[in-house]
Amino acid sequence: MTERIILDCDPGHDDALAMILAAGNPGIELIAVTTCAGNQTLAKVTRNALSVCAIAGIDVPVAAGCQGPMVRPQMVAPDIHGDSGLDGPVLPAPVRELDPRHAVDLIIDEVMAAEPGTITLVPTGPLTNIALAMNKEPRIIERVKQVVLMGGGYTRGNRTPAAEFNIIADPEAAQAVFAGAWKVVMVGLDLTHQATADAEVVERIAAIDSPLSEFVVEILKFFGKTYREHQGFDAPPVHDLCCVAWLVDPKVFTTRSAFVAVELTGTWTTGMTVTDFEFLLGQAHNTDVAVQLDKPLLWDMTVDAIAALSAQKAG
Amino acid sequence: MTERIILDCDPGHDDALAMILAAGNPGIELIAVTTCAGNQTLAKVTRNALSVCAIAGIDVPVAAGCQGPMVRPQMVAPDIHGDSGLDGPVLPAPVRELDPRHAVDLIIDEVMAAEPGTITLVPTGPLTNIALAMNKEPRIIERVKQVVLMGGGYTRGNRTPAAEFNIIADPEAAQAVFAGAWKVVMVGLDLTHQATADAEVVERIAAIDSPLSEFVVEILKFFGKTYREHQGFDAPPVHDLCCVAWLVDPKVFTTRSAFVAVELTGTWTTGMTVTDFEFLLGQAHNTDVAVQLDKPLLWDMTVDAIAALSAQKAG
Amino acid sequence: MTERIILDCDPGHDDALAMILAAGNPGIELIAVTTCAGNQTLAKVTRNALSVCAIAGIDVPVAAGCQGPMVRPQMVAPDIHGDSGLDGPVLPAPVRELDPRHAVDLIIDEVMAAEPGTITLVPTGPLTNIALAMNKEPRIIERVKQVVLMGGGYTRGNRTPAAEFNIIADPEAAQAVFAGAWKVVMVGLDLTHQATADAEVVERIAAIDSPLSEFVVEILKFFGKTYREHQGFDAPPVHDLCCVAWLVDPKVFTTRSAFVAVELTGTWTTGMTVTDFEFLLGQAHNTDVAVQLDKPLLWDMTVDAIAALSAQKAG
Amino acid sequence: MTERIILDCDPGHDDALAMILAAGNPGIELIAVTTCAGNQTLAKVTRNALSVCAIAGIDVPVAAGCQGPMVRPQMVAPDIHGDSGLDGPVLPAPVRELDPRHAVDLIIDEVMAAEPGTITLVPTGPLTNIALAMNKEPRIIERVKQVVLMGGGYTRGNRTPAAEFNIIADPEAAQAVFAGAWKVVMVGLDLTHQATADAEVVERIAAIDSPLSEFVVEILKFFGKTYREHQGFDAPPVHDLCCVAWLVDPKVFTTRSAFVAVELTGTWTTGMTVTDFEFLLGQAHNTDVAVQLDKPLLWDMTVDAIAALSAQKAG
Repeated sequence: MTERIILDCDPGHDDALAMILAAGNPGIELIAVTTCAGNQTLAKVTRNALSVCAIAGIDVPVAAGCQGPMVRPQMVAPDIHGDSGLDGPVLPAPVRELDPRHAVDLIIDEVMAAEPGTITLVPTGPLTNIALAMNKEPRIIERVKQVVLMGGGYTRGNRTPAAEFNIIADPEAAQAVFAGAWKVVMVGLDLTHQATADAEVVERIAAIDSPLSEFVVEILKFFGKTYREHQGFDAPPVHDLCCVAWLVDPKVFTTRSAFVAVELTGTWTTGMTVTDFEFLLGQAHNTDVAVQLDKPLLWDMTVDAIAALSAQKAG
Repeated sequence: MTERIILDCDPGHDDALAMILAAGNPGIELIAVTTCAGNQTLAKVTRNALSVCAIAGIDVPVAAGCQGPMVRPQMVAPDIHGDSGLDGPVLPAPVRELDPRHAVDLIIDEVMAAEPGTITLVPTGPLTNIALAMNKEPRIIERVKQVVLMGGGYTRGNRTPAAEFNIIADPEAAQAVFAGAWKVVMVGLDLTHQATADAEVVERIAAIDSPLSEFVVEILKFFGKTYREHQGFDAPPVHDLCCVAWLVDPKVFTTRSAFVAVELTGTWTTGMTVTDFEFLLGQAHNTDVAVQLDKPLLWDMTVDAIAALSAQKAG
Repeated sequence: MTERIILDCDPGHDDALAMILAAGNPGIELIAVTTCAGNQTLAKVTRNALSVCAIAGIDVPVAAGCQGPMVRPQMVAPDIHGDSGLDGPVLPAPVRELDPRHAVDLIIDEVMAAEPGTITLVPTGPLTNIALAMNKEPRIIERVKQVVLMGGGYTRGNRTPAAEFNIIADPEAAQAVFAGAWKVVMVGLDLTHQATADAEVVERIAAIDSPLSEFVVEILKFFGKTYREHQGFDAPPVHDLCCVAWLVDPKVFTTRSAFVAVELTGTWTTGMTVTDFEFLLGQAHNTDVAVQLDKPLLWDMTVDAIAALSAQKAG
Repeated sequence: MTERIILDCDPGHDDALAMILAAGNPGIELIAVTTCAGNQTLAKVTRNALSVCAIAGIDVPVAAGCQGPMVRPQMVAPDIHGDSGLDGPVLPAPVRELDPRHAVDLIIDEVMAAEPGTITLVPTGPLTNIALAMNKEPRIIERVKQVVLMGGGYTRGNRTPAAEFNIIADPEAAQAVFAGAWKVVMVGLDLTHQATADAEVVERIAAIDSPLSEFVVEILKFFGKTYREHQGFDAPPVHDLCCVAWLVDPKVFTTRSAFVAVELTGTWTTGMTVTDFEFLLGQAHNTDVAVQLDKPLLWDMTVDAIAALSAQKAG
């Protein structure tokens, strides 16, 4: 069965990979790409999304969403993603126009128009668009199949010791999403730090030898450099890719059921995805938490997708 | 000069009076009424808004908005406003259809379509619609003339010792509004508790002797009863009316400049509008806070508006 | 019946007046003076306490206590009390030695040695000593007659819009005291701002024409100046004096029963004494809150005490 | 060089082991044992400490300390330690009297009487006694050699997902200790969960075949049972033992430098030891955090200590 998804992202190096896998794998039907301020400003990440569409031959609506978090001041991540939000490769000129709708309305329209239980939301940036859509049209909550989000972690953060970037960038939105009465799969740092693009992977991609594969290689080189310099990684973890990968094949990671709440009042912990596997807090479980990655499977499907899109474009 | 306003409300007894003054005073052009869950559920307060339009002959778009707060569980106020949200009078059947737009979109559309600096937003319920509109279309922030809101207080609350209902019902939305780069006038409990509908006022309204005046009298009787029983008042304070009154004539209350922030992390104080007149917190002032009411002026203009609408309907 | 009290203070201009009333009124038996860092450092306020003893002929043990708050960084108030903590008058050289005991141990010793229910603690600074004594020897909680403290407020703060100095200077200690299973009387800013030393009062004190009355006049002049400059008062409010005055004659102010908790987690409200007269928070009342002052009575007893001590010293 | 320590504990199964290692290893001079409410009430843990002294032949002062946390309601751990706080073995009758001093005063006395930099405090329960001692006599802060505490964790809690028992039982005390200007070594769950008493260890201890070894075996059996049932462990982690072990031989675990703060305002995270190895919070490091255990070394020294004390008693 094909998974029909809306990818709500802030490209972003790993977002770009998520777009490419979603477009290049036959098991995924990418309905639309929506953008949200996150790794960089809305204008930048939206432009980046259109560039990725151009290079990868992705021909779906792209709609821009929220310019910043619901309540707090904006936070961006130039240390990791550069000034453009997608530094490294030359960014191709967009070939398609933005969808005139606001991302929030696109999400609501598509979900309300589709059969109930058929659309998966895949947010890989801050959760502002998703929270606004829930608030504006609460009926989407029961109509969506599931929300598979990149964010949080259960033993670590990256922006603070306790909080991951996507969650701390709009913690109120994140809390609204976790508390919603829909199925949430949390793909957090404990999982995504296993998903590194090692040299061997970069070589496999380079060997495809297409404009797209070159673009991906440039992305991974830049991302590898910032992760090495700022977080001491040997190879960059491609967080967002993991969400789409799980929709291609759920064997790509195992999950454990947990209660997850976003800390909103901590002095040092705001934005933490407090994750209770053991019922210590006496709360019903509301989230499936990604735990253990099958890394070869992740990269096999990703290399295949890059190759497929490259062939298609060349063809 | 006529003040062009969008009244964003949750009728609500005092909201109904605000609608009537806005419609019945020639200095106000009521562009639309939008509704937000607050005193009661969205369905109830929207139905109430349409009923008030029917009895008062108000012929403007009415659009329904958000069904609950952005992040937290919903809170309603049946102790004060009854099960319908407007208990007391017989509620007339609506005579007009709801506007098909979501309140958030109506607000954005009207503000973006109007000349900059010409539209005043008058929220008299929780601030969810306003916060969502700001988030969805931030350009409204500099195009709106001002936000004149009923909510908060600087020495007291009513839902808790520190927090007023409209603010605590969606504190994150309220904080977004106070922090926005627009002019905010806060009409809080310190002002509105001066605005009681004493027996003499009720008699003046009754003397108009129209279906509308009867409706208002029933509203004030029920509101007087719940305020007597639940909060020990001799006569009910008509909070929301004060916002519109100030737009009719700014002499109706004095203001003081202050920094206002909504407490979001307090154990006992969440939803408090922390109000710093004296720069104790070292923050720039962002709000004009209503301080001293001219009560006779308030009631004179209100009685006049009821009379004018009664005459118009009869005529 | 004589009230037996331990005055735990941080002199401080109004603390000095409290010492003088406690020593000069026959209805009070001052057992000891203990000091706590607050208006100034422990060394300074302890030296000030000894100076006040010297000028006023107070012959009771004086013991130094805690050097700062239990958990947070220290906060002092030189803007109001000057660099010495008691700027204005020439400070007489101490004539007695400090008690060798720590204030916490003095309090515990005296309370445990006395008949149960006979000793009143009168803290007029941060509540660190009292909280430490409770923690070190919890049996004092049921043996103390009552705690009559200067701190907090129910409609205002002075250090922040929400918090009064004594409470925000050690909010955890304050919360421990309010939560303790003993009778607490809170004499907060709503009461003490009524207790101003107007020009007429200063004249009456000056007319006593003794070294002590001169000392008090100098205190009130300096205090008047800082309150005029920093808080816009016409005359200085002598906060701490009110606690002792109530023990001299409870007619000096009325009280209302309330639940009081100290906010410890607020972004803007930490140190606020959240005061719930109306059971809005569903908590049992734990505090008698001072509400309405009989100002003439306050000053009559204070002038009398200064006169009595002056006569005694002269005699 | 002998390490001179005061063991401040709440026995407690693993506290008992810490006492035994401290008494039975020649590299440690145990100056005193002080007790603090924690795993059970003060009366129970103090009685347990005296019982352990009796069975192990420990002949040092034992002083009782605080009955509960500084600010919050008390929390105990009968699920893990049983109703007595040391369920399992028959508890021998005490053979020595309690020291008449309060634990806080004993700590202050001993530290102030010793050469500066010679005494290590080893708290293995809630940090109430230590925080009170710091507050009562701040000069101990620079005189103590170091504080080696069992508490917290950097990837996990046990009482909540974020908080370990000793810290959440008195988070304000813990924060005072971490913020103090002394060297702190944090031995948290990430380390202590490596320190399990596996079957092979229990057998080695049993083979000593003395009343004390039997006592330890009974302790480990009960502790193993509760950890199996309540936390799903194969063998019980003997947390507190690790602190003393590191003083015997610092090779028993590696440490990493970090900034540690105790979260005091979180909705879900209060009591968490937020641990920043990477300067993400921009704070100077204040703690050495235990990371990697040498488990064979831990058990070798522990078995040796039990054997030595058994021989000594027998001899």
